[in-house]
Amino acid sequence: MSRTVLLLPGDGIGPEIVAEAERILHAVNEKFDLQLRFESGLVGGAALDDADTPLPEDTLSKATKADAILLGAVGGPKWDGLPMAKRPEKGLLGLRSKLELFANLRPAVLYPQLASASSLKPEVVSGLDIMIVRELTGGIYFGQPRGVRELENGERQGYNTYAYTESEIRRIGRVAFEAAQQRGKKLCSVDKANVLEVTVLWREIMNDLKREYPDVELSHMYVDNAAMQLVRAPKQFDVIVTGNMFGDILSDEAAMLTGSIGMLPSASLNSEKQGMYEPCHGSAPDIAGKGIANPLATIISAAMMLRYSLEEEKAAAAIEAAVNKVLDQGLRTADIMSEGGTRVSTREMGDAVLAAL
Amino acid sequence: MSRTVLLLPGDGIGPEIVAEAERILHAVNEKFDLQLRFESGLVGGAALDDADTPLPEDTLSKATKADAILLGAVGGPKWDGLPMAKRPEKGLLGLRSKLELFANLRPAVLYPQLASASSLKPEVVSGLDIMIVRELTGGIYFGQPRGVRELENGERQGYNTYAYTESEIRRIGRVAFEAAQQRGKKLCSVDKANVLEVTVLWREIMNDLKREYPDVELSHMYVDNAAMQLVRAPKQFDVIVTGNMFGDILSDEAAMLTGSIGMLPSASLNSEKQGMYEPCHGSAPDIAGKGIANPLATIISAAMMLRYSLEEEKAAAAIEAAVNKVLDQGLRTADIMSEGGTRVSTREMGDAVLAAL
Ligand SMILES: CC(C)[C@H](C(=O)O)[C@@H](O)C(=O)O
Ligand SMILES: CC(C)[C@H](C(=O)O)[C@@H](O)C(=O)O
Repeated sequence: MSRTVLLLPGDGIGPEIVAEAERILHAVNEKFDLQLRFESGLVGGAALDDADTPLPEDTLSKATKADAILLGAVGGPKWDGLPMAKRPEKGLLGLRSKLELFANLRPAVLYPQLASASSLKPEVVSGLDIMIVRELTGGIYFGQPRGVRELENGERQGYNTYAYTESEIRRIGRVAFEAAQQRGKKLCSVDKANVLEVTVLWREIMNDLKREYPDVELSHMYVDNAAMQLVRAPKQFDVIVTGNMFGDILSDEAAMLTGSIGMLPSASLNSEKQGMYEPCHGSAPDIAGKGIANPLATIISAAMMLRYSLEEEKAAAAIEAAVNKVLDQGLRTADIMSEGGTRVSTREMGDAVLAAL
Repeated sequence: MSRTVLLLPGDGIGPEIVAEAERILHAVNEKFDLQLRFESGLVGGAALDDADTPLPEDTLSKATKADAILLGAVGGPKWDGLPMAKRPEKGLLGLRSKLELFANLRPAVLYPQLASASSLKPEVVSGLDIMIVRELTGGIYFGQPRGVRELENGERQGYNTYAYTESEIRRIGRVAFEAAQQRGKKLCSVDKANVLEVTVLWREIMNDLKREYPDVELSHMYVDNAAMQLVRAPKQFDVIVTGNMFGDILSDEAAMLTGSIGMLPSASLNSEKQGMYEPCHGSAPDIAGKGIANPLATIISAAMMLRYSLEEEKAAAAIEAAVNKVLDQGLRTADIMSEGGTRVSTREMGDAVLAAL
């Protein structure tokens, strides 16, 4: 039974970091006889440059057939001036939407070896381990109508629609309750139910679902308070579930609490467990091509892919163990460098993980 | 020339903290012969209990005539089950909207005396002084259409509209550019222009305005990145301008960086400089009635009111100096208590500020 992994390097540091993850994947493929086949495709700015669209048919068709996708990052100043439909981000959003990857899992975990990188006090973040479950194919990202219109008085108005149906809320809610069951059994649903009707429905459905998960403790928090509590006392959280836009904001905030966003993976899954995996960080155009980017978030994303979409727990664990080993050895790319560490390049970090395997 | 100040204690700890600010205001009124007249009214849950509406006509008419308003806080679990139109928050939102208080100024300042209260490392936050300018009468808070509808397939969909017109963006932009001119001359506009059309217009108008303020350096940041950067390196910011929803989230996050949200005031102004002033924190129902809430954010809000809406700089400065003095004396309410401090009640803190005046 051979399975296909689609590699989508994308833009900025994307190609460099995906190249390292690819080497690791080839190594475990052989070592554990996984029978993975690899394909690659263009997405984002790279695809715009090549084919004038951020999501070419070829990429979409490969993605639909693939068992799992590993993506680098998309976007950069080069394409910033383009109209909305031609932005690199539309490639990413198109993939999420067409493959119905509605469940975005974003862990915010503090690596003990990197604790000092956090801007927070050690006692506030040590042992931090939060899972953010973000709805990814609905909400204001995809709501219709949207655009810029001219009003009667001649001035323009920009508008977007924030909408969720019961079933959209229910399916992401289930993923979150199940994640909580596997972890600390605490789920915090984040909304703005004191102002936004769409999140009143959100809260209602979450309360409804709770009855099916008696072992999970459900709480609700307004998004402004959640943004505060993440700074004040992040360890109060186990699993957080929220909509697309709030999830975008809170997961980045939570990731930064660790101080090492270059270490954090993410998974975007559909109901068939087909998934797209990518680092939490962006395309970092300012350091692209310099060979100094941290490939570990992408490598850990590859491990997550092996675990969730390919059900190769052993290979996943082997990669994670190798990453831990290189961290223990003190190897550090620039973004996580601190006193006493040994600074390495993107490629050297990849070499070290390969060796540790 | 007598001027009227409307006091709206609201809910939870609101009455306790506004009572202390009122005593301070009476004192400076006499001391500086300000000729202020005081009125009071009901809003939020208190008004719901009394008159079955969160914003009674009487309160609205007093508010319209007042030169400035000092508000405590609204909301609490007692009213959580009510339908949207009957929520305490609607009182607050109604006041903002009817008085066109479109400019919400929320400083996030670290008091050196309270530096240890922050969950961030001292070097990351020492000297922190950010001003967040949040649009307050538009965006998704007030956008139409909104509600919950039944779809053809029988399931419900919740929806809200995020909209801004050019002129709404322009007027908040001007407030922000002017604030930046008075401060460090750096303005960061926060949007999600890679996804939301309404914020593409936002960015365009900000760029447009920039030409009128050549001395201000304008930058743009996506909201997810802003949430991260506030944690990573908050001192990179001087003034931040953003819409209603993003401003709600980021200003709470920024406030919490200081660790002492019980110290932070806010102002909501219209184009006549009429203003509503309130602490950044909420109604804290869990400690309401216990006499332990921190009245300082409300007292500092009163100082802000004297400065911006009543143009009584001397009285404002006197209050601020008195607050600094009690902090230097080591007096601390529970929320800002730390080793070596003297713990005081709400009333004792008010007494101390009065004495320091
Ligand atoms: C690039 C952008 C469209 C994307 C998003 O907003 O979802 C990114 O910030 C993310 O979180 O994956
Ligand atoms: C109480 C609530 C409606 C309000 C808001 O969301 O604007 C509050 O969070 C604030 O920031 O003043």
